[in-house]
Amino acid sequence: MTFNTFGHLFRFTSWGESHGEVIGCVVDGVPSLIPLTEADIQVYLDKRKPAQSRYTTQRKESDTVKILSGVFEGKTTGAPIALIIHNEDQKSKDYGDIKDKFRPGHADYTYFEKYGIRDYRGGGRSSARETAMRVAAGAIARKILGKSITIKGYMVQMGDDKVASQSYDLKQIDKNPFWCPDAKTAARWGAKLDAIRKNGSSIGAVIEVVAEGVPVGFGAPIYKKLDADLASAMMSINAVKGVEIGDGFASAVLSGEENADCMRVKNKKVAFQSNHAGGILGGISTGQPIVARFAVKPTSSILTSVDTIDKNGKNTTIMTKGRHDPCVGIRAVPVGEAMMACVLADHYLMAKAIK
Amino acid sequence: MTFNTFGHLFRFTSWGESHGEVIGCVVDGVPSLIPLTEADIQVYLDKRKPAQSRYTTQRKESDTVKILSGVFEGKTTGAPIALIIHNEDQKSKDYGDIKDKFRPGHADYTYFEKYGIRDYRGGGRSSARETAMRVAAGAIARKILGKSITIKGYMVQMGDDKVASQSYDLKQIDKNPFWCPDAKTAARWGAKLDAIRKNGSSIGAVIEVVAEGVPVGFGAPIYKKLDADLASAMMSINAVKGVEIGDGFASAVLSGEENADCMRVKNKKVAFQSNHAGGILGGISTGQPIVARFAVKPTSSILTSVDTIDKNGKNTTIMTKGRHDPCVGIRAVPVGEAMMACVLADHYLMAKAIK
Amino acid sequence: MTFNTFGHLFRFTSWGESHGEVIGCVVDGVPSLIPLTEADIQVYLDKRKPAQSRYTTQRKESDTVKILSGVFEGKTTGAPIALIIHNEDQKSKDYGDIKDKFRPGHADYTYFEKYGIRDYRGGGRSSARETAMRVAAGAIARKILGKSITIKGYMVQMGDDKVASQSYDLKQIDKNPFWCPDAKTAARWGAKLDAIRKNGSSIGAVIEVVAEGVPVGFGAPIYKKLDADLASAMMSINAVKGVEIGDGFASAVLSGEENADCMRVKNKKVAFQSNHAGGILGGISTGQPIVARFAVKPTSSILTSVDTIDKNGKNTTIMTKGRHDPCVGIRAVPVGEAMMACVLADHYLMAKAIK
Amino acid sequence: MTFNTFGHLFRFTSWGESHGEVIGCVVDGVPSLIPLTEADIQVYLDKRKPAQSRYTTQRKESDTVKILSGVFEGKTTGAPIALIIHNEDQKSKDYGDIKDKFRPGHADYTYFEKYGIRDYRGGGRSSARETAMRVAAGAIARKILGKSITIKGYMVQMGDDKVASQSYDLKQIDKNPFWCPDAKTAARWGAKLDAIRKNGSSIGAVIEVVAEGVPVGFGAPIYKKLDADLASAMMSINAVKGVEIGDGFASAVLSGEENADCMRVKNKKVAFQSNHAGGILGGISTGQPIVARFAVKPTSSILTSVDTIDKNGKNTTIMTKGRHDPCVGIRAVPVGEAMMACVLADHYLMAKAIK
Repeated sequence: MTFNTFGHLFRFTSWGESHGEVIGCVVDGVPSLIPLTEADIQVYLDKRKPAQSRYTTQRKESDTVKILSGVFEGKTTGAPIALIIHNEDQKSKDYGDIKDKFRPGHADYTYFEKYGIRDYRGGGRSSARETAMRVAAGAIARKILGKSITIKGYMVQMGDDKVASQSYDLKQIDKNPFWCPDAKTAARWGAKLDAIRKNGSSIGAVIEVVAEGVPVGFGAPIYKKLDADLASAMMSINAVKGVEIGDGFASAVLSGEENADCMRVKNKKVAFQSNHAGGILGGISTGQPIVARFAVKPTSSILTSVDTIDKNGKNTTIMTKGRHDPCVGIRAVPVGEAMMACVLADHYLMAKAIK
Repeated sequence: MTFNTFGHLFRFTSWGESHGEVIGCVVDGVPSLIPLTEADIQVYLDKRKPAQSRYTTQRKESDTVKILSGVFEGKTTGAPIALIIHNEDQKSKDYGDIKDKFRPGHADYTYFEKYGIRDYRGGGRSSARETAMRVAAGAIARKILGKSITIKGYMVQMGDDKVASQSYDLKQIDKNPFWCPDAKTAARWGAKLDAIRKNGSSIGAVIEVVAEGVPVGFGAPIYKKLDADLASAMMSINAVKGVEIGDGFASAVLSGEENADCMRVKNKKVAFQSNHAGGILGGISTGQPIVARFAVKPTSSILTSVDTIDKNGKNTTIMTKGRHDPCVGIRAVPVGEAMMACVLADHYLMAKAIK
Repeated sequence: MTFNTFGHLFRFTSWGESHGEVIGCVVDGVPSLIPLTEADIQVYLDKRKPAQSRYTTQRKESDTVKILSGVFEGKTTGAPIALIIHNEDQKSKDYGDIKDKFRPGHADYTYFEKYGIRDYRGGGRSSARETAMRVAAGAIARKILGKSITIKGYMVQMGDDKVASQSYDLKQIDKNPFWCPDAKTAARWGAKLDAIRKNGSSIGAVIEVVAEGVPVGFGAPIYKKLDADLASAMMSINAVKGVEIGDGFASAVLSGEENADCMRVKNKKVAFQSNHAGGILGGISTGQPIVARFAVKPTSSILTSVDTIDKNGKNTTIMTKGRHDPCVGIRAVPVGEAMMACVLADHYLMAKAIK
Repeated sequence: MTFNTFGHLFRFTSWGESHGEVIGCVVDGVPSLIPLTEADIQVYLDKRKPAQSRYTTQRKESDTVKILSGVFEGKTTGAPIALIIHNEDQKSKDYGDIKDKFRPGHADYTYFEKYGIRDYRGGGRSSARETAMRVAAGAIARKILGKSITIKGYMVQMGDDKVASQSYDLKQIDKNPFWCPDAKTAARWGAKLDAIRKNGSSIGAVIEVVAEGVPVGFGAPIYKKLDADLASAMMSINAVKGVEIGDGFASAVLSGEENADCMRVKNKKVAFQSNHAGGILGGISTGQPIVARFAVKPTSSILTSVDTIDKNGKNTTIMTKGRHDPCVGIRAVPVGEAMMACVLADHYLMAKAIK
């Protein structure tokens, strides 16, 4: 019953609004004696930071993280770790239309109806700015998991342009502004997104996150299944509308024979012959790579005027000016990685407790 | 941290194994003074019950539910409601191969590796038999929600054969053994599944569940988003590999203009012009129908021999005889409905507490 | 948010009413591969069972426990363990007065006001019969803790007659019907309680529970302190009105010098020179015996007529006939032991997960 | 499973160390549209603040609270409310002995053994400085409860000098530095504590907290009993060793007749004739005042040298210099009030959700 808290044993609670003075989170359940510096966290925040290319929002934020507690002489103490990031580019402006009108596709209407009040400045609490704290918590989660577990996210589809899985080249991911695992596709995406951006439009995307090195036995039966927790984690990211594990929706078209991940023993180790399951069976990791995928809808903030209503129940139209990501999928990549890290760190601790 | 418990305020804890004497659950958080009989629950269990057509497992279970506590003089008292169902068709047999071999696609290997022990009889705890208790809990959830909220599930895809959304006719759902909203498609599926069944093979499916009458304001920000809870709920169902809300993965190919659910005021009521969002914005219900979809992989139990290993780490093969569902998607329909009901009842209580 | 669930990682959910057909619980979070039989649990239930002497209620219940799930081939599997006990002596009778009148000191009034309905038969859900399931869960908790941790409860005060701590002889505990650690005191209590019983009156008591062998490091800072969890656990037992750890309220009269538990190293081991703290500092076990004490109020069911009201808001009087414990403290001893075991098992698992 | 989080629906997570730069908390589950300013919180912090008289620690802290999120245009928004207080008097000093030696009665030894690392500066995370955030959260809890519920704490015993309950005069509470409800007793305490303070010694105390105006029906059966939650809340306060509800340990000496809180209807309202139960029956509030009492041990930091060990396992002695409270009970009064407020706010929300 924790609206703003994620996780069971490894837990973080985030707070703050898009245009408040500062955002932050408290990370609880971190084992002691783990070396931790702000730089360990900053490296991941820098991946998510806005305005790194012309393809993301031009809001200027250094997203510099500060550790306020829980670390002593360079090591975690077991006490809660409080992190903050000052909002730098939230200087007061005329919020104009969005103060009184509900932007379609945004949480404006639902927040106002539920709470009777709404911090409309930049989306307030419902802004994707909150995801910076997920990335920060995810950096700590990675420290808990250690170097034997690696997590890698990348964008595999923008609009209807998909990277064919046989073209995946993970070395490409960091070499283009889209975290795209294929150079040719990245080039096409660049051209496409330039056009979309100039039109003030936006486009959806699909992101894949893979964790390698996860041992067999993470996860737990029935309602703490590793895949159920991953589904919740990914779906909780702003703009996400779908989550898949392994073959996902494609598994609906398979026969049992096609879907079987056969097993062999090789060099005294278990070797699966395929990974349709995405590394999870019965909610528990198999030792294979954990593969999750999620769909991100197009940014709802667009320069086209659309029909909506205002808070007085009158019909009106709105056109959302401002500094928006034409494809929020790009910046969702480090967020998806972070959520994968948090889920795994949580299940790592649970697996230590009970098996 | 509740391995076998689902929910926050409306909660149920299930227990029992496929071939144990009895399975059960305890439903907690049910408001008092709600009329409740075993018949109220049985009607939903009867939808999920095996052997209702030749297209599902031929295991014979009446799935007769018994209320053991929490109801007094026909009404709920606020005390926990314990439910049990006796397993009738679990009579001892030679479990043969599955005792020592790991069936690909099943939880055999992961359970054994995690726990060092495995109740192999019919899948033990990892059997989909557990979903009977979800359906029972879901029936109570529906009583909490009342008649103004209706929940309807149906199968929209079997293998590669999809029902076109323009052909949906919800009156058809109860008229064919597939909960298919289109008579013609149902006929095709029947022929197809007969062939699959006779071959001892299996096939995947996609199920859609829609809740109508949900008021605006169910759900909560960030980590208790209604869609995040739905994703976890659906993904926790056996064999589910993907979950979508509203347009789901299809939203990746949309532009912001296409994806905008415009709003108008009509007769002093808010009217959305479309429902790409599936009734949820910012994790909170909009008042539109809540639309969730999930993909079910093909049954892993097939009559074809596949490569696997045994618990001594030796290579072997296995062919899974027995009474299996050729398409588990069929019986997943009432389970998906139940999980939708449970999530909504939980959020109904949460919305009463905090807004 | 678990009304009927106790614990964090080691958890049990109890259900059932005093005069229902059956009561039960589900124990979750039990590690696998622990040998467990019904007899392991029965031995503790037999300590709590009614009608073992003339000093407790004469309700006849064998309290025979049955394991319904979670154990396979004599060992725990990691799956939830469902336990039930059939109520044998709840045969229908005329509930007379208690149907409509609120018994002072009982939960009758508060349940009715909160829920608008009340299972008045034998106290329904608020009956101490529920504590049988705590004892059952506690037996499993002890199996998790293993033999190196021993838990012993005993009654140290009945009415105003206290056992002097220098007279404690734990070998006496099982030799008298009061779990009294002093034979002379037990004799006095016998005479006293005979008189109280014959008068249809009742008396309060104080119980002490000590756990030995608990290693340093169980517990966790701030809101999961071992003593905070013990306080909640003991206070949740029916009729308990106070909880102490170590010197408890007596520590209020001490000076800092008197209260200091000095430390020495002896044979390379840490040796405390006293245990005013009751084995807990900063919420974490010190390695010394954990000492908890709780006060039980006198049974509210008495043969004297007292003023009360009925459910229609009319003044009336009530005299509670029936089979009651003249001193519920006696049967609270095994319950207190069980709650200590459950708290420790929970913290044992937590300490494995995070330190 | 929330080490640093308190509560179920109304929840706060605290963080920070005694000598860190800043301490803080995040308060979640606060309903929207509640007017809230820093001044609303500051008034309670000022009651707990150090150095208000010569009877408390002379550490100089203004304890100025700052709201960082969750409030918009003067009202709560339903989003998490982050609060911080800068530590002002934590300037680096020679921590000398306490760096390597374990102070008896403090959490030094247990933290070091559990975590293998310890922020020794001023007690780090185990310092009572954390209770400032409880008081801040409690101020918000009071705003949720509204003005019809009043919470008052006072010290009823210092050492062996108790205020007789017939002498209680709540108007005196704010007129002496001890929150003592009797002027004569306060005078005696002053003389006594001056002597203790000058000797560098310390003394224990008992605090009583009473909540008036709580309606019938707060609380919930079995494991979320209002008294169980209060017991946990009070026992979690630093140095607390015992908790009582109503008559507490004194109820052990009562007979059933003496303990009965008889009921009458007066002016169509229920009137209890006494309140031995402390306002709680069966874990649910009766509508009478909620009465809780807790014992605080003497401050462990004393100027007398006592035997201890160091972190290398060597015998040594320690004398704790510095600025300490000679009777921590004094500053525990506003903390006890705050915890009462937090528990009640939590149960207020729960009672709204489920009854």
